Amino acid sequence: MRHPIQIPPVSQALKAVLQDKIDQKTKPPGSLGKLEQVALQAGMIQNTLTPELKKPAIIVFAGDHGIAAEGLVNPFPQAVTAQMVYNFLQGGAAINVFCRQHQLQLLVVDAGVNHAFAPHPLLKDRKIAMGTQHILHRPAMSQEQCALALQAGAEEVTLLHAGGCNTVGFGEMGIGNTSAAALLMSHFTGIPVAECTGAGSNVQQLTQKRAVLQQVMAHHATPLSPEQALATFGGFEIAMITGAILQAAALGMLVVIDGFIVTSALLVAAAIQPAVKDYCIFAHCSEEKGHRKMLEHLGVHPLLQLDMRLGEGTGAALAIPVIQSAVAFLTEMASFNSAQISNRTI
Amino acid sequence: MRHPIQIPPVSQALKAVLQDKIDQKTKPPGSLGKLEQVALQAGMIQNTLTPELKKPAIIVFAGDHGIAAEGLVNPFPQAVTAQMVYNFLQGGAAINVFCRQHQLQLLVVDAGVNHAFAPHPLLKDRKIAMGTQHILHRPAMSQEQCALALQAGAEEVTLLHAGGCNTVGFGEMGIGNTSAAALLMSHFTGIPVAECTGAGSNVQQLTQKRAVLQQVMAHHATPLSPEQALATFGGFEIAMITGAILQAAALGMLVVIDGFIVTSALLVAAAIQPAVKDYCIFAHCSEEKGHRKMLEHLGVHPLLQLDMRLGEGTGAALAIPVIQSAVAFLTEMASFNSAQISNRTI
Repeated sequence: MRHPIQIPPVSQALKAVLQDKIDQKTKPPGSLGKLEQVALQAGMIQNTLTPELKKPAIIVFAGDHGIAAEGLVNPFPQAVTAQMVYNFLQGGAAINVFCRQHQLQLLVVDAGVNHAFAPHPLLKDRKIAMGTQHILHRPAMSQEQCALALQAGAEEVTLLHAGGCNTVGFGEMGIGNTSAAALLMSHFTGIPVAECTGAGSNVQQLTQKRAVLQQVMAHHATPLSPEQALATFGGFEIAMITGAILQAAALGMLVVIDGFIVTSALLVAAAIQPAVKDYCIFAHCSEEKGHRKMLEHLGVHPLLQLDMRLGEGTGAALAIPVIQSAVAFLTEMASFNSAQISNRTI
Repeated sequence: MRHPIQIPPVSQALKAVLQDKIDQKTKPPGSLGKLEQVALQAGMIQNTLTPELKKPAIIVFAGDHGIAAEGLVNPFPQAVTAQMVYNFLQGGAAINVFCRQHQLQLLVVDAGVNHAFAPHPLLKDRKIAMGTQHILHRPAMSQEQCALALQAGAEEVTLLHAGGCNTVGFGEMGIGNTSAAALLMSHFTGIPVAECTGAGSNVQQLTQKRAVLQQVMAHHATPLSPEQALATFGGFEIAMITGAILQAAALGMLVVIDGFIVTSALLVAAAIQPAVKDYCIFAHCSEEKGHRKMLEHLGVHPLLQLDMRLGEGTGAALAIPVIQSAVAFLTEMASFNSAQISNRTI
């Protein structure tokens, strides 16, 4: 299976003109640091000297993981995935707070939570199954389920884009999903899974979690394609995020990458379509152990380092105002010429 | 001369209760990283379990430096200080853009710019003189001027506080002021001035700038008091920021510390009143070379590392929404109990 989405390269034609516009702003050259890089990237993605963020949104995908049922890799019981979905719907989670603060649209998608939700106006039902299979014994999902999940993620982004949104960040909820992300990381980076495995939400369980994940890697034959790896090790929420990232890039949106789990979905997406990376802004470096190495593997630099490791898209939500600052300085600041300010003498 | 401002210690009584409130929020313990520390600090400063940011503001103090007249330490001509003040008044500078974005009140104060401004409704006239003396030859200012500047900074904060503001960040504009900040840093940290001297706005001039500042340090007898050091090496904008920081802490405000120059003012303030540090939130780590060492000397960790080195309070302006996020999660997030979510099983 090959994912059919094609991602065009970002505009190289405007790069020099954008850089010149940035350098003419009333500040020492380079002095806005990472904001200058984001402004350049946003201009190249949107192919304009006046990029803007329209109706920025966060989509949180939730799914359960068969491996979490036994509690070997997760301190919180699996039921917390569904409980947290209710928390999202009631507005009480961290991602709700940050989205309200920054007026970000928040969508919650049931990708495959092990709970039958009654219909709710704020919950998108994309449930593939009541959680994945136990990956110690068999692939997390079938190839058909994986294709459905990729497609569902892409469709959610298409709908969002049709509503006028051009900037989207992704979040996730799924007890056990740091295990899936560590397995995907090991597969796509070649780093031994023990080094990819962090504490998740519990430090005391780390040795046991490492041992289980090493067993998982040993159990499965090396998957041949990115989609096979995703089906073998992933989760429904991770697969939907992968499809969503690919579609967002294909639509020319700014894609805000959150932490360890979302970046594992990007590893899959980039293996399918390497051009996707040019559309991604890396929100933060998570405290979850493997994330820094993931970012190094991708050769990218995150905007924030707030020692966070919560997921839900919270890093993306906090980074969006920084991206807005980058776009705002590019479009609103005076130039040396317009403000009649003397430039450097040397 | 001793500064008369007395700063009370922040509330220790609430610390354990605040930490428990933070830990009961629906997230793995510690997973909001630095935001949890800021939430704790804000609660302790405001002596409440429900801290809030009221009318957050940035005050930019501008002043000229005698040492900059010759262009030995600065690539931009001295006239740019006044030109940038006009840019602030017209809304075209980076700090204007970020304050508009985050609805921060912005005050611009002429602390001692070498230019006669016509009265302007947005410019506060606190001019001590038309720039400081050339510190290669004599102290930057007299002790009387220094006392006036400390007082003026304190008065601006008192006015702001009287208007209902409880959170203030400081910024500065002054061609040549990285030199003054490097000299203050060397005096207060004991680090040789060459190691305190960064490129400012120009890398090519670094060797010359270091040599000049070493001459300055050799020329002056070691000042005895913090105020004497401030008068010898500082600038009018730095002295006003010092007074402003001390007064803001005395009034129980959250004090948002920007980059290299503002932190040099804090070094003076902390030497006068060590308790001031507990009221300070460190916005970012500037790319200006000495700033990281300054922060290490103070034993503090900044919120942002965006590779910025612009000044004007731009780092503080970008950090204020992060501080708002910290306060918002503490006051708005559900608890495990209120959301009926299972806590950890181990």
